[in-house]
Amino acid sequence: MFDLKPIGHVRSPLQDREHAPKQGSEGSPEACLVFQPEFQEGLRDLRAGDEVLVFTWLDRGNREILSVHPRGDTRAPRRGVFSTRSPDRPNPLGLHRVKIVQIVSPVQFKVLDLEAFDGTPIIDVKPVLDQARES
Amino acid sequence: MFDLKPIGHVRSPLQDREHAPKQGSEGSPEACLVFQPEFQEGLRDLRAGDEVLVFTWLDRGNREILSVHPRGDTRAPRRGVFSTRSPDRPNPLGLHRVKIVQIVSPVQFKVLDLEAFDGTPIIDVKPVLDQARES
Repeated sequence: MFDLKPIGHVRSPLQDREHAPKQGSEGSPEACLVFQPEFQEGLRDLRAGDEVLVFTWLDRGNREILSVHPRGDTRAPRRGVFSTRSPDRPNPLGLHRVKIVQIVSPVQFKVLDLEAFDGTPIIDVKPVLDQARES
Repeated sequence: MFDLKPIGHVRSPLQDREHAPKQGSEGSPEACLVFQPEFQEGLRDLRAGDEVLVFTWLDRGNREILSVHPRGDTRAPRRGVFSTRSPDRPNPLGLHRVKIVQIVSPVQFKVLDLEAFDGTPIIDVKPVLDQARES
């Protein structure tokens, strides 16, 4: 077992699973990344316009499930969770590619295209590298 | 704090930091993803030819560091870790896009382009979605 520490959280108008879009590009509202002050040094080179990968901990995911109906469609055959982006998986990591649109403060960034509930813990941020190689 | 449980580990000829390429595409040897048997159901829809995202726990990373010299070059100015892919960061998550080239067994997959040391814990696997949106 490894200890994951939250470095911040998502502030978003999305409040529950029923109202969340399945993927960010299908229309997520503007959201904010709010970091704990002790991580400010690590954030100092992020700029408005940057596209970054945000890693979250999908704390409402069911960690005991190993197969799911894709997108919740019970008519579709179950798939192994490692072939899906379901939040139900042994380690409910979320991966979100977002664009920073405004540095509100050194620890608060407004972003586009973030599909995550209000309060979702943030655990890491990484730069997007070469789009052809990465994702 | 959240508990992350390893679901498997990397088997690779890469044994230490000095010999690891900085990014996978710079020439990683063929490696193997070896999963614990209890996660087999979650893996059942992965196929040879699939490109997937492998999430690892970079257990040699220094979790107390918030800025680093990019690629270890001490002449370069330090950068906040969240603008780098350094393994030194509060939560040392590794993200690797790899191609499955052979299903050796239901819990053992041979892959290309994996930059990770032998024994590195695997914590999640996700499908690559739309390349334009995702990474």
